[in-house]
Amino acid sequence: MQIPPETFLIDRASAQPLQLQLRRQIIRAVHEGRLRPGERMPSSRALAAHLGLGRITVTQAYGDLVATDYLIAQGRSGYFVSDRVEELRPEPAPDTGAPRFDWSTLIEGRNLAAKRKDRPTDWRRYPYPFLYGQTDDRLIDHAAWRDCAVRALGRRDLGALSDDQYDNDDPELVDFIIRHLLPRRGIQARPDEILLTLGAQNALWMICAILLRRGVSTVIEEPGYPGLHEILRTMDARVLPVPIDADGLPPERIPHGVSAVFCSPSHQCPTNRTMPLARREALLRLADQRGFAVIEDDYEFEISFAGSTSPALKAMDRSGAVIHIGSFSKSVFPGLRLGYIVADPDFVAEARALRGMMLRHPPGHVQRTMAYFLSLGHYDRQVKRMRNSYAERRRVTSEALSRHGLDSGQPAGAGGSSFWLQTPAGLDSDVLARALKPEGVLIEPGRPFFHDGSDGTGHYRLAYSSIAARDIEEGVRRIAQTCERLAGQDGTSRMNRQPQV
Amino acid sequence: MQIPPETFLIDRASAQPLQLQLRRQIIRAVHEGRLRPGERMPSSRALAAHLGLGRITVTQAYGDLVATDYLIAQGRSGYFVSDRVEELRPEPAPDTGAPRFDWSTLIEGRNLAAKRKDRPTDWRRYPYPFLYGQTDDRLIDHAAWRDCAVRALGRRDLGALSDDQYDNDDPELVDFIIRHLLPRRGIQARPDEILLTLGAQNALWMICAILLRRGVSTVIEEPGYPGLHEILRTMDARVLPVPIDADGLPPERIPHGVSAVFCSPSHQCPTNRTMPLARREALLRLADQRGFAVIEDDYEFEISFAGSTSPALKAMDRSGAVIHIGSFSKSVFPGLRLGYIVADPDFVAEARALRGMMLRHPPGHVQRTMAYFLSLGHYDRQVKRMRNSYAERRRVTSEALSRHGLDSGQPAGAGGSSFWLQTPAGLDSDVLARALKPEGVLIEPGRPFFHDGSDGTGHYRLAYSSIAARDIEEGVRRIAQTCERLAGQDGTSRMNRQPQV
Repeated sequence: MQIPPETFLIDRASAQPLQLQLRRQIIRAVHEGRLRPGERMPSSRALAAHLGLGRITVTQAYGDLVATDYLIAQGRSGYFVSDRVEELRPEPAPDTGAPRFDWSTLIEGRNLAAKRKDRPTDWRRYPYPFLYGQTDDRLIDHAAWRDCAVRALGRRDLGALSDDQYDNDDPELVDFIIRHLLPRRGIQARPDEILLTLGAQNALWMICAILLRRGVSTVIEEPGYPGLHEILRTMDARVLPVPIDADGLPPERIPHGVSAVFCSPSHQCPTNRTMPLARREALLRLADQRGFAVIEDDYEFEISFAGSTSPALKAMDRSGAVIHIGSFSKSVFPGLRLGYIVADPDFVAEARALRGMMLRHPPGHVQRTMAYFLSLGHYDRQVKRMRNSYAERRRVTSEALSRHGLDSGQPAGAGGSSFWLQTPAGLDSDVLARALKPEGVLIEPGRPFFHDGSDGTGHYRLAYSSIAARDIEEGVRRIAQTCERLAGQDGTSRMNRQPQV
Repeated sequence: MQIPPETFLIDRASAQPLQLQLRRQIIRAVHEGRLRPGERMPSSRALAAHLGLGRITVTQAYGDLVATDYLIAQGRSGYFVSDRVEELRPEPAPDTGAPRFDWSTLIEGRNLAAKRKDRPTDWRRYPYPFLYGQTDDRLIDHAAWRDCAVRALGRRDLGALSDDQYDNDDPELVDFIIRHLLPRRGIQARPDEILLTLGAQNALWMICAILLRRGVSTVIEEPGYPGLHEILRTMDARVLPVPIDADGLPPERIPHGVSAVFCSPSHQCPTNRTMPLARREALLRLADQRGFAVIEDDYEFEISFAGSTSPALKAMDRSGAVIHIGSFSKSVFPGLRLGYIVADPDFVAEARALRGMMLRHPPGHVQRTMAYFLSLGHYDRQVKRMRNSYAERRRVTSEALSRHGLDSGQPAGAGGSSFWLQTPAGLDSDVLARALKPEGVLIEPGRPFFHDGSDGTGHYRLAYSSIAARDIEEGVRRIAQTCERLAGQDGTSRMNRQPQV
């Protein structure tokens, strides 16, 4: 890399000679890794012009740095950062003499405190990553996505790419969601009922920010989605977790006086259960009677192995009480950061205003690329491929679990991309997860799925979205083996029910 | 477009015959524009398979729809939506019989109330758009951006594109910001002092969300950035606007007991004034003494016409009291939605946790593309081209303003992309802006730049970032002419000081 002259600045008010300032600046940049071995320095002429110095000042500084081994002079090619800098002893960091500013009085810190800290970013290094929410690159139609992205970079779409859209969405993407995607969920919507979001997490966050003021109560599923638990820990509302049963959230257990009910009726997170029709009707009736909003997280509807998926709760919503959340994170890829809300126009208007202040809009290019991916049929093909692949993996996982005595008791054919399992004989799933890491296996312990994080030690989630079918058998075998080993260590598993730090 | 079978759903619990349900669904979709003239229906075989119906049921439904002119049968090619549907009278919308859900009790509505409503998205239709914050496509190196975006779509970068990064940033982009960009502002930073944001607006929003709790006071510049005013209207903190003078924000007028001070020292928004060194030092001294955070909006540093820009306030910050906001919206394009915060690691950790909950991270592809745009030198070239072009436009605007008696009294050479002007003789800038629209001229009235929106009617902002140099003279002429006409209408300009609805 050629270092641009603009990298350097001179403080003319300083008592330090200009040449010394420049030399120190270069030395510090080398030690801090901002200038790297082999990189070419600006020409003395260019740097002198930029800084308003005489050229001789710059060549003197360079000359001194060559003498001290920081730079190498290569005749007419100019000056380069020396590759011997690794051997040079760094100057001690200059003591600024200023006390460090105390942020503790200004920052409450509730976001950092609420944050989930158990998510590995290095999951690709594990041979058996039973990890939820990351996509298997083998299932992404990378060539098609690339093709759509290149189209969306064309002249015709330049305005969609470059303009500040204020708080508006890409009309082409909204149009395709309305015409192409929502009808499959049985949902009819107008453009003023749609808001694009930076993924489902962004949708949940905005919904909470709008509805969950101090003094408000809200119901969530127990166990439920960890990303929602994180958000709720930062909000002022009172959170009432309602234990789910075999049919998902039981409406009759929703207390009076709540303003919002969060649920995942298609595939309950994390148990994968589907809410039956009668219960959906009861839930909506209650919402209309008592005036609470129902937030439907439809996060994984595409991954259903039945012929036609059951309609969304929103499809049955005649009054407008349901806020429906959809996401492209599971069906395209999560790094895309794109999802949407379908809700009553009054709610969407408020959420749009909030989004406008928070971030304006999802990047134009991302929206337009997604519009092409949908309209050219790639989305359908990718979802189909994923569905087939997940069905196969689910079958393989189910068989492996049976074979190794980790029976799930869950039907193999339902859909989704994970199993929700019990640990054998009271083994703590945090202990199990830690013991599996050196074996190259990642599982998700149950704790983050419970509101206060104290429960869930007897459960774990085993996802097959990021692991190839051929690796599943060996991964499950290692889990079974490790369970056995830990159970064999007598009291250890019981002693370790509190996580070790 | 070929309509996918998944567009249609059947409710088996309904009393309606299946064939009738299907027919009604198609009719409704046609009238609502979800199925469009010329689009091809799924084959009867595919649709029957999807819905689990007999094929005869589907062909009967299709036959009936051909008879009623909704569909056209084209032999072996299948069925298409008729282009005569425009003539068909839509069925009345089915009355669901359900009362509409009342959102007013659940939504406070403060976001919608706070939102600025005067921003035109159709600005490209105006021949003289003196509009700030949109980029002139002629200055964007579209080919280079496209090249970088295509690189970032390559196999090597697939993980950066597709993965859920949780709350992490693209290390390559962070590295280039630290090594390449910040040194020009005189800022040395480590990776834990950087957070990427969805543009500067997102940075401001998060800073406000973290610092401005109920009971906290904050100082802002008056006049100041309208996007900040919007945010502050939704927050609980007490806002104390401090009038700026010729040198920007006067530190001695900052009241005791404030927790945060927002300022734009490089180019004060909207007056373009630069805060001198002595005042910067005084501001930082005060921040350390009294323990308030200083938020530096460095929104336009690239657009400086001097040889080397003056360092940022953050460059002088020895204690860590300054939160620095940078943005690529002005230097690349605003539709990108990418900016960054440079701040003390304690603050960045909290902001990172908040961002993780709000939206996880900016889309991977956008980050990696920007990293290439920086590292391949395109950014430098584009900024240089913009700077030259803006310098020329500033000169042309300044001359036109003088020629037409709208003197700015502002030096032509300072930098920035706009002038802050006074209307002649007490003319209301809202009235002026409205009168100019039919003339094809867009200006920004002064009101949104003032905290409570009641002041500012005697000012307007004239930006030259979105208008070509050759159009400036005529645009300014029309402004001068309109000013004269309005002033000539005797009392009209005075009577109209309240905006007309």
